[in-house]
Amino acid sequence: MQISWDQKYAKRTQRMKSSAIRELLKITEEPDVISFAGGLPAPEVFPVEKFAEVAQKVLSESGPQALQYAATEGYRPLRELLAQLATQDGVTTSVENILITTGSQQALDLLGKILIDPGDFIVIESPTYMGTLQAWSSYGAEYLPLPSDDQGMILDSLEELLQRGPKAIYSLPNFQNPSGRTLSLERRHQLVDAARRYGIPILEDDAYARLRFEGEFLPSLQQVDSALQNDSSSYQGNVVHLSTFSKVLSPGLRLGWVIAPPQLISKLVQAKQGTDLHTPTFTQMIAYEMLRDGFIEQHIPIIRETYRIRRDAMLEALAQYFPPEATWTHPEGGMFLWITLPEGIDTARLLQEAVEKERVACVPGAAFHPCGGGDNTMRLNFSNSSPEKIREGIKRLARVLSSQLATSR
Amino acid sequence: MQISWDQKYAKRTQRMKSSAIRELLKITEEPDVISFAGGLPAPEVFPVEKFAEVAQKVLSESGPQALQYAATEGYRPLRELLAQLATQDGVTTSVENILITTGSQQALDLLGKILIDPGDFIVIESPTYMGTLQAWSSYGAEYLPLPSDDQGMILDSLEELLQRGPKAIYSLPNFQNPSGRTLSLERRHQLVDAARRYGIPILEDDAYARLRFEGEFLPSLQQVDSALQNDSSSYQGNVVHLSTFSKVLSPGLRLGWVIAPPQLISKLVQAKQGTDLHTPTFTQMIAYEMLRDGFIEQHIPIIRETYRIRRDAMLEALAQYFPPEATWTHPEGGMFLWITLPEGIDTARLLQEAVEKERVACVPGAAFHPCGGGDNTMRLNFSNSSPEKIREGIKRLARVLSSQLATSR
Repeated sequence: MQISWDQKYAKRTQRMKSSAIRELLKITEEPDVISFAGGLPAPEVFPVEKFAEVAQKVLSESGPQALQYAATEGYRPLRELLAQLATQDGVTTSVENILITTGSQQALDLLGKILIDPGDFIVIESPTYMGTLQAWSSYGAEYLPLPSDDQGMILDSLEELLQRGPKAIYSLPNFQNPSGRTLSLERRHQLVDAARRYGIPILEDDAYARLRFEGEFLPSLQQVDSALQNDSSSYQGNVVHLSTFSKVLSPGLRLGWVIAPPQLISKLVQAKQGTDLHTPTFTQMIAYEMLRDGFIEQHIPIIRETYRIRRDAMLEALAQYFPPEATWTHPEGGMFLWITLPEGIDTARLLQEAVEKERVACVPGAAFHPCGGGDNTMRLNFSNSSPEKIREGIKRLARVLSSQLATSR
Repeated sequence: MQISWDQKYAKRTQRMKSSAIRELLKITEEPDVISFAGGLPAPEVFPVEKFAEVAQKVLSESGPQALQYAATEGYRPLRELLAQLATQDGVTTSVENILITTGSQQALDLLGKILIDPGDFIVIESPTYMGTLQAWSSYGAEYLPLPSDDQGMILDSLEELLQRGPKAIYSLPNFQNPSGRTLSLERRHQLVDAARRYGIPILEDDAYARLRFEGEFLPSLQQVDSALQNDSSSYQGNVVHLSTFSKVLSPGLRLGWVIAPPQLISKLVQAKQGTDLHTPTFTQMIAYEMLRDGFIEQHIPIIRETYRIRRDAMLEALAQYFPPEATWTHPEGGMFLWITLPEGIDTARLLQEAVEKERVACVPGAAFHPCGGGDNTMRLNFSNSSPEKIREGIKRLARVLSSQLATSR
């Protein structure tokens, strides 16, 4: 009897939709397509030579250890260094607060695994990161969306949602994926206060924090929360902070970390044991060396400057070519920019025409709205294209948009 | 309001027990302990210099690609090569049959994620690999155990169990972890036939296949199944085959792969997208280079010979020092050996005494029996200790055992 994987075995997987981002990555890989669809860092700024140097050092000094099984929590010197850096930044952190993950995406999956039972609610901002929706929907999460504006998540109805007993609040406070928006300082305090009053954790996904190229640094939600904590030798608060080496070093390494209360870390460790045993020690040692010798700090300004130039190119091209009916965000960092078009324009249809006629791609906004809406919005990535390609791509996209606006009138 | 992670958030995690293996690894890390408890390969045979050479090659030839985000399915040349090798070994395999995973453990987790709903039954052999139990129990799996003997899983009551409609059969056919036993050829055919008749998939965990140092090679369950398949350009059968670079190259790389029908692979890919996006390309490229240039094939005999010498040392020491009431398996490969003691001896208690009084460690067998039993059994690892340490450790363990036998009389 042949197995029909689509029938008997379809139950759980019905909940999991293929990631629109990743499917688009495949379509838009052809060299003549200008793609603003992906979420890729600029490979031009990957420090390849430094990697080669450090890989040699790690293998010659600690080869057998780099290649052997290791503790699920992660490479201890790296955890200690991350704890020390977090403490310098105002969150008293001990090594027990830190778990190394196989990219931030794994931290999202593990949080889903230990926190979310089918039907549990999570408060999110809308739009939000679709990789998180994919991870948590597989555990049966339901979402309570809050709209957002140029100050980030709008908190007017937050308490109303918290009264419904959600499992957590999910926030991307800096240069949010997909909108590029940043949560204002006032709202950070408001959010942390409300979460404390209701005893509901905030899951803070802060992948882009270091990529600020304009405006002033704002404290993370965990920093805001930590300031309200009584003296302690480790962080014991309400915020689970997710970070990553993907945006400051290399996304292909798949290296992220979580800062959370030790009680939660030990639950995440148990979940990670069953999931991939541990993250490769070789790559953890490489990241450790680059963090320890100060290389990453020297390298980040190069990334920032590259992305600032690309964002400026995109903002200028939008101002020049896009019709007045369109509006867009002004991200102060990160990799993405968010376009809002007049109601009635469907960006999914626009994408199809854009790829077919003009060989340019974006991500339709509906994918970032788990509870519907956003059909007239789209995400543009500026980190992965040269300023020349950005200008050309925006020009092409503007042509498609103008033709669709003309039809819709 | 402070969050009590143990109360509101305990629900799901109650199902997940900390892996006994990994907790023991921590206790037994002190240098004066002779540990047969872990499941570590011998680091002496890790090809560190070759790693250094290949890492340089990969970074100098394909640095930006090695460090960038990549497709969830895995590095395509590696998938193609693995498909080609599987085809040479008798299973017609296309690239669509292959998924690269972050170690075999991730393949187990992903299979749990897409196949197992709470209360689903899985047919297992008892004892079985506890990392699998940990992965699947977190999805609410229940187990239908079949006992095993020197020919592997005993299949007399298999059909009775299959009639209860399990989701899958889980088998480790070669040098099984923990018992070191190998499923006989006759039983392989019997198992594959029954699974086909009932339309129930076999999940074949074959991490140790290449580590045979005695006796003749047996076809994998997937090879047996494939021989029953009609002509096709890809594998479409009933067996999901899990393999890994952990035992032939480096476990710390966290690199495994799955060979399965394309329909199932695409479900696993969706699940993997939400779990860690993809496995690092850098490490995949390193493994690819070592596989392509024939290095791994040259390297495996060195591992085999090292492990054979260690197994022989353990068998000899057992014969010399262990009391006649104890029996043990004679593994023809792999890394583990299984001890059965008289009823009434509790190996959990024995371990405690062994660590405290004699500074030697093993894994009590109960951990490998999800449905109870096995209290008088234990697993010994021989791959990670020198012959001298093995002799000394077995001598120490024999002393503890003799004293416990004397007490129990």
